[in-house]
Amino acid sequence: MGLNVPFLDPVSTTKPGPKNLITDVPGVTVGNVTYKDGTHNTGVTVIKPTQDNIFREKIPAAAHVINGFGKSTGLVQIKELGTLETPIVLTNTFAVGTAETALVKAMMAQNPEIGVTTGTVNPVIMECNDGDINAIRDIFITENDINQALQATGSTFEEGTVGAGVGMSCYDLKGGIGSASRTIDIDRKTFTMGALVLSNYGFLRDLNIYNEPVGTKLAAFKEAKKDKENGSIITILATDIPFNSRQLTRISKRASVGITRTGAFIGNGSGEIVLAFSTANRISHGPQTELTTQAAISDDKIDRYFRMTVSVVEEAVLSVLTHATTITDRKGQPRQSLRDAINAYLDEQPDADLERLKTQLGI
Amino acid sequence: MGLNVPFLDPVSTTKPGPKNLITDVPGVTVGNVTYKDGTHNTGVTVIKPTQDNIFREKIPAAAHVINGFGKSTGLVQIKELGTLETPIVLTNTFAVGTAETALVKAMMAQNPEIGVTTGTVNPVIMECNDGDINAIRDIFITENDINQALQATGSTFEEGTVGAGVGMSCYDLKGGIGSASRTIDIDRKTFTMGALVLSNYGFLRDLNIYNEPVGTKLAAFKEAKKDKENGSIITILATDIPFNSRQLTRISKRASVGITRTGAFIGNGSGEIVLAFSTANRISHGPQTELTTQAAISDDKIDRYFRMTVSVVEEAVLSVLTHATTITDRKGQPRQSLRDAINAYLDEQPDADLERLKTQLGI
Amino acid sequence: MGLNVPFLDPVSTTKPGPKNLITDVPGVTVGNVTYKDGTHNTGVTVIKPTQDNIFREKIPAAAHVINGFGKSTGLVQIKELGTLETPIVLTNTFAVGTAETALVKAMMAQNPEIGVTTGTVNPVIMECNDGDINAIRDIFITENDINQALQATGSTFEEGTVGAGVGMSCYDLKGGIGSASRTIDIDRKTFTMGALVLSNYGFLRDLNIYNEPVGTKLAAFKEAKKDKENGSIITILATDIPFNSRQLTRISKRASVGITRTGAFIGNGSGEIVLAFSTANRISHGPQTELTTQAAISDDKIDRYFRMTVSVVEEAVLSVLTHATTITDRKGQPRQSLRDAINAYLDEQPDADLERLKTQLGI
Amino acid sequence: MGLNVPFLDPVSTTKPGPKNLITDVPGVTVGNVTYKDGTHNTGVTVIKPTQDNIFREKIPAAAHVINGFGKSTGLVQIKELGTLETPIVLTNTFAVGTAETALVKAMMAQNPEIGVTTGTVNPVIMECNDGDINAIRDIFITENDINQALQATGSTFEEGTVGAGVGMSCYDLKGGIGSASRTIDIDRKTFTMGALVLSNYGFLRDLNIYNEPVGTKLAAFKEAKKDKENGSIITILATDIPFNSRQLTRISKRASVGITRTGAFIGNGSGEIVLAFSTANRISHGPQTELTTQAAISDDKIDRYFRMTVSVVEEAVLSVLTHATTITDRKGQPRQSLRDAINAYLDEQPDADLERLKTQLGI
Repeated sequence: MGLNVPFLDPVSTTKPGPKNLITDVPGVTVGNVTYKDGTHNTGVTVIKPTQDNIFREKIPAAAHVINGFGKSTGLVQIKELGTLETPIVLTNTFAVGTAETALVKAMMAQNPEIGVTTGTVNPVIMECNDGDINAIRDIFITENDINQALQATGSTFEEGTVGAGVGMSCYDLKGGIGSASRTIDIDRKTFTMGALVLSNYGFLRDLNIYNEPVGTKLAAFKEAKKDKENGSIITILATDIPFNSRQLTRISKRASVGITRTGAFIGNGSGEIVLAFSTANRISHGPQTELTTQAAISDDKIDRYFRMTVSVVEEAVLSVLTHATTITDRKGQPRQSLRDAINAYLDEQPDADLERLKTQLGI
Repeated sequence: MGLNVPFLDPVSTTKPGPKNLITDVPGVTVGNVTYKDGTHNTGVTVIKPTQDNIFREKIPAAAHVINGFGKSTGLVQIKELGTLETPIVLTNTFAVGTAETALVKAMMAQNPEIGVTTGTVNPVIMECNDGDINAIRDIFITENDINQALQATGSTFEEGTVGAGVGMSCYDLKGGIGSASRTIDIDRKTFTMGALVLSNYGFLRDLNIYNEPVGTKLAAFKEAKKDKENGSIITILATDIPFNSRQLTRISKRASVGITRTGAFIGNGSGEIVLAFSTANRISHGPQTELTTQAAISDDKIDRYFRMTVSVVEEAVLSVLTHATTITDRKGQPRQSLRDAINAYLDEQPDADLERLKTQLGI
Repeated sequence: MGLNVPFLDPVSTTKPGPKNLITDVPGVTVGNVTYKDGTHNTGVTVIKPTQDNIFREKIPAAAHVINGFGKSTGLVQIKELGTLETPIVLTNTFAVGTAETALVKAMMAQNPEIGVTTGTVNPVIMECNDGDINAIRDIFITENDINQALQATGSTFEEGTVGAGVGMSCYDLKGGIGSASRTIDIDRKTFTMGALVLSNYGFLRDLNIYNEPVGTKLAAFKEAKKDKENGSIITILATDIPFNSRQLTRISKRASVGITRTGAFIGNGSGEIVLAFSTANRISHGPQTELTTQAAISDDKIDRYFRMTVSVVEEAVLSVLTHATTITDRKGQPRQSLRDAINAYLDEQPDADLERLKTQLGI
Repeated sequence: MGLNVPFLDPVSTTKPGPKNLITDVPGVTVGNVTYKDGTHNTGVTVIKPTQDNIFREKIPAAAHVINGFGKSTGLVQIKELGTLETPIVLTNTFAVGTAETALVKAMMAQNPEIGVTTGTVNPVIMECNDGDINAIRDIFITENDINQALQATGSTFEEGTVGAGVGMSCYDLKGGIGSASRTIDIDRKTFTMGALVLSNYGFLRDLNIYNEPVGTKLAAFKEAKKDKENGSIITILATDIPFNSRQLTRISKRASVGITRTGAFIGNGSGEIVLAFSTANRISHGPQTELTTQAAISDDKIDRYFRMTVSVVEEAVLSVLTHATTITDRKGQPRQSLRDAINAYLDEQPDADLERLKTQLGI
């Protein structure tokens, strides 16, 4: 639901949709399965782009790799064919194999012709490494968990320390799942763009929100010790604007600006990958004719969609930071939420700017 | 006009268009300016994709770099925007700067708003190095030559030792310009694909035509001495099938198969670049509305277009070899045509397979 | 072991290594696990690039996607970092998830610090769809099979209808695993390049071997009915030449020429992916110093390595076709070997060219 | 010389080199040719990466296209071969052809074998559109201007409204040339990285410096009217750290973060291209042996080079804004410098934050 308060949004004048979630894009649903037992702090998040049989009626999509230190699957085929034909599963790095098997089975169950009279299916699994907080070596996630998440999707969902986000960190604070949306009028029709991030990136000292270098202050206070990035951020962009795959690639590249507006610099170990899709056109698995027409949009005014992309991704990151709650990691140490970290700081020393920031963020 | 005789065409069952030239694609015209003075053996070839103002009404396009040892310009923007907004100029490597200036001036003359009320224009110049045959250091080509070629385009044109092809070699034989076309029925409508190559690649010993290793025979006879590739091959693919930019990229990749079917291996120094465009849709420079619809075609049966691409590119290369005529290079040495090279061989020793090949190629 | 007879090799003058297998490259080993029960005709093939702990001592690598209709994993990180840090597992498309989990577990067992004091690991799984021959929907391969293959690697191995190749087809004939090698002298030192292919691509009518259009003849005889490519070909290139990642990418691109020299055209559904690695340098997971020196090789004479690549990949494909044996597919139909298909043809009609080809191929 | 005052530099702790210019990297020199006659407000900037014959002794390089709406030349070959073999010429968009011809001639003059006994040369020309300020249609720059700039390079140079930067804008204020440098210790040796930007990008309202939204304030005051980006930014990164071409690509990608840290969002029309080179190794045009060793650096601690890159690029942009001076454009309108724009604002209304910013920037 993005922020609880108005987002300070200089780069775009667009407004959030009704829920301020990726599910404001018609047809998009999201589901979470969450584990928080102290050792196994992990989970699964599923995004369903449409409520139709997406294998039979694929949608235009694009994948953009900002920094390829990551283990997501399915991107090669999306780049070649420009289509998405499964739901998207987010989970931890070592659950990718399990998720892939479970998603293939789910797609086969829905489409009995797969592997019999037609070819295979391209499962899309995206991941971040939650090994700081979760006992990732246990490979705790099961195929059943993936199925549960696939079945649990709905048009509202929790953010923060939920689903695939349970064990994630963001700027060394508690990270996780965040989402936001924007609406825009094009030729007198209203369209929506939504973002969902699985946010596990950044160093505390770089965190900068609404021109307040909160990370520098907190880092001096907390003595953050991380010297290498193990994180990542996965960004999902959904829209009903009729972008084609090439345009979705261009849109995806602007997600990078949204990600770094809070101060990050695309660390070496931070696998930053964007997957964008449009629900406006469908590409049939077995078309009746070859020739057809498709809804399209010109690049001429694409700047305003770029601005909207930057804005919705930045708010999705802030929504992670404001919704995530402090957790105890696998070693018994707390991973503080932004709110708790600021409050701990303020307990020691007054700071009007941080007080103001809390108000601005609604925390 | 492709070959003078039926092309032996196992990879595709499609047939040539009326002229068997890239200009069989409606609206496409080609023009040559040719210099052959013994020292300055060079020229210019222009391809106009449409007869409209292409800057105002751009067309979908894609560029694919098979091997990037080359100096073509304009590809970066085509990859980003997926559109072509000028004619394509082919010339020698060191004439690229002159051609770029001349093409910019021609576009400005046609479009007074360029650089005043709108931005700039993306000139596309593609090149091969004709320095073995042409005194390339003299930078002989002038802006006027480019203008002449731009004005001289028509729906028929010469192939072989003409235009940008005058100083080119192909498999160490005389290379140059070649073209061919194919027609295909899609949903009961007829469409055309045409290829034009500027062919300057390959080692003689590798040349293989219709399963006859003619190059091996000739190389043993001629004692070819080249130890490094300085060549290149530029391939232009034109079609009125409504491919989008992503699909044109996929089509372009299959040009590589057509290029290597005569035996080449993509040498280090061989800049192999493909530019493909479709005339089926137009992208307005200043669209009235953002939302629109575009003609489209599914990827479902794209194999037959891939086959057609391989076939038309292979025939365009053979059309170079059969149309090019022996020339004396800048050092006074002959660069033999395929016909002359085979005949010289046959003068010394009978060879039924080479006699058969001559008949098959109509030379 | 490549072909049983001398390979007719016009593109390169290099000779095979002692075994004519990818394992001629020092340190490379290969292992197979094979299932052939009539319904479950599938398996696993593992390539170990070095006998060291490859996670601790990574090697330069490159991945090149010729056609991205495929589901291989691990390529994104290889493209970013230019290193390989696990063995390579080949299997069927729907076993990728299982293989990924198993390989992650194997790497964790060998490296207890993964997921504890260091980050994760990038498992590389490559695949083709064996669904025509294997009951792929059963997801028959288990983690234990992957472990068996990992433990079974050695410096000799079977080719043809083995390992991941059991259920594969090649030009509509029986496909599978094939391998070959080449040696070359550089500055008076001897180096080796090896190829291993998992070959599942091509239409029968396109098959052309040593300038004999065998596929056209057999296709007319057999009435092949396939109208779409479901196949793929995975190519692994190993060498001890000190290529860096950029050069390995250039080498990988020439594999495409080797693949298409037998007549294929890179079909839409044919996921064609190349992974190349060099064992000459090691990149430490935790280097003592940042600055170092690396063995290197110039691009100046790279043409001969390109030629060698084309040759070794072409022979690996021919080695598939000559080693694979007829199998009964999941529907009870035979998938004929090249030898059996030619013999069936010759039983009906004499053909001196096909008899000669049999001799040339040693079948 | 970067800023006149200490750069506020949260993302990196590295310090500037002695001149705080790209020429702090040993061997790098820069030269400008400047025209400011009211109508022809344009020029040329040349960067020489080494003082050796760079065609004979090439250097590792990489080009990264952030947004490909641009007309730079030479990038295709840099991507393929990973080397730079000429100086880099920056100029306006329509001078690219002239610059290419002039640079080819200069390289031929230095290397008589080009086009005779060896192949051609790959000239690198990079550009921005200065058509708002300069009468770009006049194609005013001559080959002589390029030669003058090539001959005028030195280890100190002017920034701001000079050279190729004369007609450029930055955030709708006066843009142009800016440079900065950083030094870093690696394994007890000191290395340098320098940046030079040709800055012509951004919308005024987005400008944000040191967490002060100066652009929002000025835009409200000035009523900026631009609705589309016609700009671009070219970034040159030089270093003596022994990065290879793959690593230089990774470094280049972080330039994007430096560019957007002042508030930009990578506009559609903003061609944003980065060229990075390392002077640490040389790649001979005609090597004596193929095998060699090269200085190398591990990716293990590359985060600190990423941070340094972000920082040096951000400061180079700020150096543009602080050094550029108000100019009268081709239509007789002033294009204000940042200093003049802030002062005009402060003449109307007091603003302590802007006063502080002026001090922080030394303007």
